[in-house]
Amino acid sequence: MRTLIGIDPGLAATGWGVVRFDGSRFFHVAHGVVKTDAQSSLSERLLAIYSAIRKLLLKYGPSEAGVEELYFARNASSAMQVAHARGVVLLALGQRGIPVECYSPQHVKQAVIGRGRADKDQVQRLVSIVLGLEEIPAPDHAADALAVAICHANRLRLDVQQRYR
Amino acid sequence: MRTLIGIDPGLAATGWGVVRFDGSRFFHVAHGVVKTDAQSSLSERLLAIYSAIRKLLLKYGPSEAGVEELYFARNASSAMQVAHARGVVLLALGQRGIPVECYSPQHVKQAVIGRGRADKDQVQRLVSIVLGLEEIPAPDHAADALAVAICHANRLRLDVQQRYR
Repeated sequence: MRTLIGIDPGLAATGWGVVRFDGSRFFHVAHGVVKTDAQSSLSERLLAIYSAIRKLLLKYGPSEAGVEELYFARNASSAMQVAHARGVVLLALGQRGIPVECYSPQHVKQAVIGRGRADKDQVQRLVSIVLGLEEIPAPDHAADALAVAICHANRLRLDVQQRYR
Repeated sequence: MRTLIGIDPGLAATGWGVVRFDGSRFFHVAHGVVKTDAQSSLSERLLAIYSAIRKLLLKYGPSEAGVEELYFARNASSAMQVAHARGVVLLALGQRGIPVECYSPQHVKQAVIGRGRADKDQVQRLVSIVLGLEEIPAPDHAADALAVAICHANRLRLDVQQRYR
């Protein structure tokens, strides 16, 4: 049984989701979102994200991580903010020697729902079905992070299958 | 006498420069560049930058920091790499409670040479004159970082002057 963490980085809100995977079935462990105060300085906000992720890694001990790729958002400055947050997330993972794979939103949709173009809502419903949750995980960033974790587990499974083919 | 650090973040090379400032004169302390191995993973490279900056902060104990703003480079993906590096630099400063100001390259040129549009070479020569160095500091990223530190010191000086006006 492997424990995986999926992370959807953002400066205001970083989603995270932890799942276990036995090679065929998924088990939901936990999910949530790290929010930062827009009134704080950029350094303080990055420190809040980094500290929260460090604690999560310590608590859940994932052996693998999937992190959402940057997509070039409406404006470059918001993409930059995400990139700052993503930097400290990758740092926290690197410090614990956790291997990281990065996935684009399209890649995640493809892996979870079989199509690169799917509604956010469809992905979230699939995530709740795959993980046997009674409700759709909230908020969106946490649901996205769970989707990334599932996507990463699928990738690992395919790698293993290919290895033994 | 205040100790200031200037940092010019980059994924491949992060320049840094430490100066002291007594309110009117500058004293050069040290400068250099943190290079990362392009063969390493993104997490490993960010970890290398973060660890090096942490060591520098411990060694020189600056009370203030100036960090170069992101400028939108030729391509968005290189700007993203800089933003990742910048995230871990700001984190390291935040962890030590060092106040940070960010300056655009134009702002730095304006502060050091009096014009927003100046050659890199002119700025570097001015930096070596202001700091009483016999040679132009190298490599470029380190010279840029010293310029950021000088720019920040000038800003602090102006703030003090305005306060007592």
